[in-house]
Amino acid sequence: MPYQQLIECALADTIGEGGLSATSLARLLEAAAPVLAKLAAAGADGSLAFLTAPRLSDDLKACGEISRSFRDTCAEVLVLGTGGSSLGGQSLAALAERGVGPAAGTPRLRFLDNVDPDSFEALLERLDFAETGVLAVSKSGGTAETLAQLLVILPRLEAALGRDGVARRLVVITEPGSGTLGALADAYGCVRLPHDPELGGRFSVFSAVGALPAMIAGLDAEAFRAGACEVLDASLGAATAGDAPPALGAAIAVGLAQDRRVTQNVLMTYVDRLATFGLWHRQLWAESLGKDGLGLTPIDARGATDQHSQLQLYLAGPQDKLFTIVSLETAGLGPRIELVEPARADSAGLMYLGGRSLGDLLDAMARATADTLARNGRPVRQFRLRELGEYQLGALMMHFMLETVIAAGLLGVNPFDQPAVEEGKRLARDYLQAAAGSDEAAS
Amino acid sequence: MPYQQLIECALADTIGEGGLSATSLARLLEAAAPVLAKLAAAGADGSLAFLTAPRLSDDLKACGEISRSFRDTCAEVLVLGTGGSSLGGQSLAALAERGVGPAAGTPRLRFLDNVDPDSFEALLERLDFAETGVLAVSKSGGTAETLAQLLVILPRLEAALGRDGVARRLVVITEPGSGTLGALADAYGCVRLPHDPELGGRFSVFSAVGALPAMIAGLDAEAFRAGACEVLDASLGAATAGDAPPALGAAIAVGLAQDRRVTQNVLMTYVDRLATFGLWHRQLWAESLGKDGLGLTPIDARGATDQHSQLQLYLAGPQDKLFTIVSLETAGLGPRIELVEPARADSAGLMYLGGRSLGDLLDAMARATADTLARNGRPVRQFRLRELGEYQLGALMMHFMLETVIAAGLLGVNPFDQPAVEEGKRLARDYLQAAAGSDEAAS
Repeated sequence: MPYQQLIECALADTIGEGGLSATSLARLLEAAAPVLAKLAAAGADGSLAFLTAPRLSDDLKACGEISRSFRDTCAEVLVLGTGGSSLGGQSLAALAERGVGPAAGTPRLRFLDNVDPDSFEALLERLDFAETGVLAVSKSGGTAETLAQLLVILPRLEAALGRDGVARRLVVITEPGSGTLGALADAYGCVRLPHDPELGGRFSVFSAVGALPAMIAGLDAEAFRAGACEVLDASLGAATAGDAPPALGAAIAVGLAQDRRVTQNVLMTYVDRLATFGLWHRQLWAESLGKDGLGLTPIDARGATDQHSQLQLYLAGPQDKLFTIVSLETAGLGPRIELVEPARADSAGLMYLGGRSLGDLLDAMARATADTLARNGRPVRQFRLRELGEYQLGALMMHFMLETVIAAGLLGVNPFDQPAVEEGKRLARDYLQAAAGSDEAAS
Repeated sequence: MPYQQLIECALADTIGEGGLSATSLARLLEAAAPVLAKLAAAGADGSLAFLTAPRLSDDLKACGEISRSFRDTCAEVLVLGTGGSSLGGQSLAALAERGVGPAAGTPRLRFLDNVDPDSFEALLERLDFAETGVLAVSKSGGTAETLAQLLVILPRLEAALGRDGVARRLVVITEPGSGTLGALADAYGCVRLPHDPELGGRFSVFSAVGALPAMIAGLDAEAFRAGACEVLDASLGAATAGDAPPALGAAIAVGLAQDRRVTQNVLMTYVDRLATFGLWHRQLWAESLGKDGLGLTPIDARGATDQHSQLQLYLAGPQDKLFTIVSLETAGLGPRIELVEPARADSAGLMYLGGRSLGDLLDAMARATADTLARNGRPVRQFRLRELGEYQLGALMMHFMLETVIAAGLLGVNPFDQPAVEEGKRLARDYLQAAAGSDEAAS
C-alpha cells in the first residue's frame, strides 16, 4: 500500500480508557464485514459510480486536449465551482503549486468558490481576460454561486475575445441534459464535459472534475487514479474487514463515538501540500455522515503550525476527539540548518538545530505530537507516507472515501445524499427575489 | 458600536430546547458580572497587558520607519513566526490583499508558519534575496520553527546583501533580555522591537506584532487600535454584564455547554477578508479555554462556501454546536449579474439572479443560513458589520478577546497559559537530538 496506517494508539490496551476496547473493535469489524462485502460486490458489478470512476480513462483524452489548449493560451484559469466541484481540484493543484504558485509552463489556477463582492471585484481589476480561461463545474448545473460567477465573467470574456473566444476559453463540466449551466455552455458553443449524474460532488475527484484541473496544473491524472485503484483492490479484496484499512478506520471512529462519546474527528496533516486535502476530507465526512442527528464533526488541522494553536485543547481539553495524523517521511529532506558566524558564537539555544534539516524538525514534531496525544490517553492513528505525488494522493483520497462510506454503513445513514441543505437554498432564493421585488416596487 | 450582535436565535424562547433558557442566561450573566468588574479594574489600573496594548502608540513610530524602509527596498517580506506570532498579522494583511495580493506599492507579505521542507525549498528557489526583507517574531525567542526558518534564511540573505544588508533587512520582535532570537538579532546588529513579556502571543495583535505587518501592507494601525478601544470602553464601562456584548457572548457559549451539551463553537464568516481572522479566533479560543478537561472546540467555517461542505452536518447532525455568523452588509455591492444574449435566451434558471449583485447573493445566503439554522433549533448569533476596515477588525478582535477571557472566568480556567504543549515540545527536541546522535554514531 502507498501508505502505512498505524492504529495501535487508538486502542484501549495501549492508551487506557480513552481508547477503543478489543471487544468493541471486534464487534464493529463484524458489523463492517457485510458493508465491505456490499462495496466489493458494487465494485465488481459497476453499480457504484465512485468505485468505477478511477478505473475509467476515456475522459482523459478530452481533458488532455483542453489542458494543452489552456496551457498554450492562458496565464490564468479560473475554476468556478464550490464544495465538491472545487475542493478535489484544489487538493490536486496544491501538489503542483508547493505553496508558491504554478509550476513553470502552466497557468495559475484560481479556484473561485465564493461570491464575496469585494474579492471578486479585486480579481476583476487584475485579470487580463485576453489570457484567461474558465472552467465552470456544477453537477446539477444550477448552483447559484457558480452561475452568478459565470454571468459576471462572460460579458468580460466576450469583450476581450469575442463570442468565438468564449467558445474556445470556457469549458463546462455538468450533467448531461438541459440544466442551466449546460444550456449556457450550449448557447455559447463551448466544450461541455459530462458529469456522471450518479457521482456526487464530494466523490467526483476521480472524474474529469479532478482530472482537468490536475492536468492543467501539469499533473499526471492516470497516476492519481492508479493510486485509488490500488486502494480499491487491496481493500475490497481483503480477506476480512480487519485487513481492509478503511474498514478498520471506520470501525475505530464509529466505535469511539458509540463507546467513548467521541464527537470530533481531527485530521492533522503534517504536509503543507495536504492542507487543502484536509478541507476536501472535511466536506466528504461532514456531508456523508451528518444526518439523522448523527455524525462526528470533522476538523482539519495543520502540523506543525497548529501545535501553536490547537494542541493545548487537544491534549488538555475534553476527551471527545479522535486524531488522525498524516505525515510524510521527511527526515533528512529540505534545507539544512547551519550554525554560521555570528549565530554560532551564541549557539547554546540553537545547538539542537545545528546540522539538522527542516524535514528532520517536521518529522520529529509529527512523531512527538502523536506520542504526546497517546501519552495523554487521546486516541490517535497515524498515516505515514514514504513519498507524496499524484499516486499517493489518489490512494489517500480513495482510502477516505471508503472509510467514510463504511462509517455511514455502521451508523446506518445514507452517505450519498445531503437533504438538509435544500431548505437554506430555497430561503436564499426567496430573500433574493424579495429584495428584487422591493427594488422594483421602489423604482 | 462598529458591529451589531444579534443573539435572539440562540435563546430557548425563540428556537426551543436547542437554545439557552432565560433562567440560565440570567444565572450566567450574574456570574459574568464580577469577571467583567475585574477586567474593568484591570483596564483602569493597567495590570492586564492585553487591555493596555491598543491604548499605546509609542511603538508606532518605529513600526512606521521600518515599514517605510521595507516598502522602499523589498518586493517581498517574509514574516517568520507561528501561532500568535503570525495569525494576527495574517488577519490584518488579508484586509489589504483582498484575495489577490499586495496593494500597489507594498511588498508581498509571506507568512511562514511551518517548516515543511518541500514548500520551504520551493520558496527558496523563487525568492530574490536582494529584494527580500525578514520579520521574525517569537515572544520567548526560543520557538524552534521560527529559529530554524531564520537560520536557513540568514546565510542566503547575507550572501545577497552582505552582513550590513542583514542588519538593515532583518527585524526581530521578541522579549527584552537574552533569549535566543534576541541574541541572534544583536549579533547581526538588527533592529529589535520589544515583545511585552506579559502579553501572550494570541493576545498580541494590538502590539507591534500586528502593527508592523499591517503597516508594511499599507494599513492604518492606529485605526485598528481605535476600534479595539471603542469595544473596551463600551464593554468595560457597561452598566450590567448583559449590556456588555462580550459578556453576553461568553454567557451564551458557556451556558449552552453546561445546559445543552454544546461542545463546539462554530464561527462562520461570510467575508473572504475575514477567513484568516477565523483562524486567529480558533487559536484564541482553543488555547485560552482548552484545559482542565474543559473548553468547547472552536471551528472556523467560511460562508457561503461551506454551505456546500459543512451545512448538512450543521443542520442535521448532532445538536452540539453554537453558531456565530459574521457578515457584512453587502447588499447592492460588487459586480452586477447581467443576463445578456445568448444567456438571456435561456434564462428560466437564471431569472432570480438577473440584475442582482454578487453582494446581494452573499447577503441573502448569510441571512438564509442563520434563519435555517434557527428554524432547525440550532443556537445562532449574528454579527452584522456595516463596513469592514482596520477599525472594525480591531473592534471584532477585541470583542472576541474579551469574550474568551470572560468565558474562561465562567469556566474557572486561566485564559493566559498553555501548559500542555510543553510536553510535546520537549519530546520533539528529544527526537531531534536522538536522530542527531544516531547520525554521529553511524558516521
